[in-house]
Amino acid sequence: MSALATQVLQGDRRALARLLTIVENAREGSDDALAALFPHTGHAHIVGITGPPGAGKSTLVNALTQALRTDQKTVAILAVDPTSPFSGGAILGDRIRMRDLAGDTGVFIRSMATRGSLGGLARASRDAVRLLDAAGYDHVLVETVGAGQNEVEIARMAQTVLVVEAPGMGDDVQAIKAGILEIADILVVNKADHPGLDNTVRGLKMMLELGHPASRTQVMSHHGRAMSVAAPVSASDDQPLWMPIIVQTVATEGRGIEALLDAIRAHRAHLHLDGHLQRLEHRQLEIELQERLRDALLARLLEHVSAQDMSVLIERIQQRRLTPNQAVETMLAGLRFGQFED
Amino acid sequence: MSALATQVLQGDRRALARLLTIVENAREGSDDALAALFPHTGHAHIVGITGPPGAGKSTLVNALTQALRTDQKTVAILAVDPTSPFSGGAILGDRIRMRDLAGDTGVFIRSMATRGSLGGLARASRDAVRLLDAAGYDHVLVETVGAGQNEVEIARMAQTVLVVEAPGMGDDVQAIKAGILEIADILVVNKADHPGLDNTVRGLKMMLELGHPASRTQVMSHHGRAMSVAAPVSASDDQPLWMPIIVQTVATEGRGIEALLDAIRAHRAHLHLDGHLQRLEHRQLEIELQERLRDALLARLLEHVSAQDMSVLIERIQQRRLTPNQAVETMLAGLRFGQFED
Repeated sequence: MSALATQVLQGDRRALARLLTIVENAREGSDDALAALFPHTGHAHIVGITGPPGAGKSTLVNALTQALRTDQKTVAILAVDPTSPFSGGAILGDRIRMRDLAGDTGVFIRSMATRGSLGGLARASRDAVRLLDAAGYDHVLVETVGAGQNEVEIARMAQTVLVVEAPGMGDDVQAIKAGILEIADILVVNKADHPGLDNTVRGLKMMLELGHPASRTQVMSHHGRAMSVAAPVSASDDQPLWMPIIVQTVATEGRGIEALLDAIRAHRAHLHLDGHLQRLEHRQLEIELQERLRDALLARLLEHVSAQDMSVLIERIQQRRLTPNQAVETMLAGLRFGQFED
Repeated sequence: MSALATQVLQGDRRALARLLTIVENAREGSDDALAALFPHTGHAHIVGITGPPGAGKSTLVNALTQALRTDQKTVAILAVDPTSPFSGGAILGDRIRMRDLAGDTGVFIRSMATRGSLGGLARASRDAVRLLDAAGYDHVLVETVGAGQNEVEIARMAQTVLVVEAPGMGDDVQAIKAGILEIADILVVNKADHPGLDNTVRGLKMMLELGHPASRTQVMSHHGRAMSVAAPVSASDDQPLWMPIIVQTVATEGRGIEALLDAIRAHRAHLHLDGHLQRLEHRQLEIELQERLRDALLARLLEHVSAQDMSVLIERIQQRRLTPNQAVETMLAGLRFGQFED
């Protein structure tokens, strides 16, 4: 095993930081280290946190981390941020976190920015989560700005997905919300002290119940003490179905955070019933393998078809002498797969 | 040539609608019809319109269409909408358009909803744009809700990209905006009569100039009559560079629409200088071919590796006896490409 991988297993934070950089950039040694650490994964609870900008995700992640620390759990935070040449990759909320969580060896914080394709980020994030899992953190919180495809990616690697909303973010966001709702295990209405709370909660509840006709949504207020959450079960199904819980929080004041932790624990308990977690992992791995296969297949083809060959084909398409489809057929002519040995 | 394809070339709207459905769902006959019509493409000006929900894109597209009609141009509108099982694929703004544009044979309107993957939508949208182009429309307006990856997709098929914003959509959207700005040829600040206009325009201008240090941004007010727009040129480059123009509009009242048309024409003129359009099309086709190759390669592999084989590999990954990477290597063992015949 590489020295770095061994050090990561021994709890060396600097080794972890260095290995994350290597893995993020797919540098030499990345695959070997991941292979060495892979048998040590599978213990962390991986929680995805997404939602529109301005919902207060960073503050919420911060409050959640402090609550988990009070409970003696170790926490790794992976902040995945969309970047661009314009913004230069500013990481939202990092300064707040640095201030509140600095110096606690039970917390590890890492930011990761979009470079090039979303696909590349998905690969890098998955691998980073595996390193943090192998490093022994009890919880890995993966935070991302909700922007279309990002939430879908996060749902493909997290075990429990939190979607964070805030009151008064506008009715126009309905169409977007609908897409987000599908992936939420827990809906957090943060900034619950802001005007418009009731409307927001009512709207979310309605949309959730449209999607799960046989169930009623549990709504947990940010007032009063924490409640215990029963894993909500659909009435119509043999297979116990998870019905998303709505939790109201005021993260800046720590209100509702205990209730949120209860909801997270309830979802984790649900996953460990009846093989839910195994089936979830199976589905996620299937998607991951397909993505990796797509990339690997294209990379191999591009070793075979030169940039010059490709350019010639594109020019013929531009002259309308060949369709894109026909160009693909041309490039795939003669493709053969070897005997698959199980 | 198929009867439908011939009818489309003859201007038969019902044939066009039927063929769009066939192509959207990749039904039988789709490839043949596309191949037959492909030589007739390349004449339309393809304008992409994106931006956050609530910026007034549909109203803007409507106003733009009416202005183009006054100019005797024919217009096809392709509205690409994110969908979900929850919302059932409601198409934003369609009712407004139906009312204002119905009965005009110089306008063709089509909605397309996300089914399954974003990748599938990109493929279907590109093919739909080609059909509309072959059908002879002078302008194809492709409208999509800006949500992360969607804008990137639209930039990959449009020749001129409009990003629509509105004042007072919140500072938190900065990070998202940064990503959107990269793809904008023209920035439309719609609802320019709303409070916060100056701040929004100033912010956008600043971000644009950060990305193009040698240039100054043209801002076109929604007051007064249309101005003529000179193709803006970077001072520092041999290769004339397009510097995004900011145009203020009040689409509900038709204000600023003529200035926007001027900006669109200026961008089109810029594209026809020095082979810009050819290079843009070359880059777009390269990305399209890579996407098609990825999908085609995976599809062929999955004919070769059964679902059962795949499941066995996934279970071994779940037992931590194999890494995802090793599973990919296993499936690709023996892959061979034939002789590539140019």
